[in-house]
Amino acid sequence: MRYELYYWPSIQGRGEFVRLALEDAGAPYADVARTPAGMKAMLRLLDSTALKTPPFAPPFLRAGELVIAQTANILLYLGPRLALAPKSEAGRLWVHQLQLTIADWLVQVHDVHHPIGSGLYYEDQKPEARRRAEGFRNNRLPKFLGYFERVLKKEKVSYAHLSLFQMVEGLRYAFPNTMKSLERRYPRVIELHDRVAARPRLAAYLASKRRIPFNRQGIFRHYPELDQ
Amino acid sequence: MRYELYYWPSIQGRGEFVRLALEDAGAPYADVARTPAGMKAMLRLLDSTALKTPPFAPPFLRAGELVIAQTANILLYLGPRLALAPKSEAGRLWVHQLQLTIADWLVQVHDVHHPIGSGLYYEDQKPEARRRAEGFRNNRLPKFLGYFERVLKKEKVSYAHLSLFQMVEGLRYAFPNTMKSLERRYPRVIELHDRVAARPRLAAYLASKRRIPFNRQGIFRHYPELDQ
Repeated sequence: MRYELYYWPSIQGRGEFVRLALEDAGAPYADVARTPAGMKAMLRLLDSTALKTPPFAPPFLRAGELVIAQTANILLYLGPRLALAPKSEAGRLWVHQLQLTIADWLVQVHDVHHPIGSGLYYEDQKPEARRRAEGFRNNRLPKFLGYFERVLKKEKVSYAHLSLFQMVEGLRYAFPNTMKSLERRYPRVIELHDRVAARPRLAAYLASKRRIPFNRQGIFRHYPELDQ
Repeated sequence: MRYELYYWPSIQGRGEFVRLALEDAGAPYADVARTPAGMKAMLRLLDSTALKTPPFAPPFLRAGELVIAQTANILLYLGPRLALAPKSEAGRLWVHQLQLTIADWLVQVHDVHHPIGSGLYYEDQKPEARRRAEGFRNNRLPKFLGYFERVLKKEKVSYAHLSLFQMVEGLRYAFPNTMKSLERRYPRVIELHDRVAARPRLAAYLASKRRIPFNRQGIFRHYPELDQ
């Protein structure tokens, strides 16, 4: 099966959580919207009235006849096919639970720089972003990191672990000072991050041009004034 | 199987999406935290180091040996067991995709009254809430309603349809003026709402004391200044 991933071509964003799974598994896939023609194809599909299961937004995945949207849902589908999820139903529900918790966390990362509205620029909501960042750094961020520190075990790597790796990467980019002072409290999270980074296919991907660098259009954004 | 639902006892919140599925199916369940002893049991479980799959937050469901958290994940599990999800994998992924889109929408409803931080009172973020409400009413709300209007078909009712019913109920409570002016544009959404409301077990539940009234501690809150 050759998968087709559809996501905005200039940011890591939510698509990256799917990419990490596909890359780690060495699965054949096209990152469709990375070419101008593919971008047009994505926009056409988003407007299409012919799809049986229309996405609300990217990312979405084409897998044969299926079109699947919502990051966590795509990973739910891919997990067992890429050997990145447990075999038992209980195990799969647990990994999905972790993934959905990461999804909640990610929304909060985004809303730090966009507390008033995703339709406005950051520059239009800077004072509000500073206030929101304070609560994020002091309360929400330690709460999520502490949760994963508590629940991580030396288990087989799943797609949720790849996503947790990505959270650490993104948070280090966006909040370097905060992460520097926090990380020592979460040794299991950092050990997991390092273990994922060392996986050969993933390491090769991260060093390749297929990995879009973090930037100020993405979900993780480095604004020094939000990381004091 | 007698299920145990754990959720905050004084609000509908995220627990309500699970309740609607259990009630509509006539499934036996205990709404554990609705008694003081049950509330203590919930807090104990949230702090427990003995659970194999600890929740980040309520709601969570006990189903025999399993403890499952994250609203959409609970419904993913319950769906086929309550005959509220299709039998095919493709059908289940589609219903789950709808549910996750509703989850995104719900966060945005919450953040209208808490744009700066969930740890602060609404009263500490009123000007910011007014700004955020404007973008919600004019852009985000029509976008989500329009999406569901586009994708709804006369299909068998699933747990995601029960959740969409709850979105309409909550939005009518929180934004009565806005909904009054918007609803006529989304006849399929309203038809679905009415069809769900007429289901006998659900109607009996809604008229019972088990249904907690909407209030200003929940996710859907009526503040007239945010509904101009």
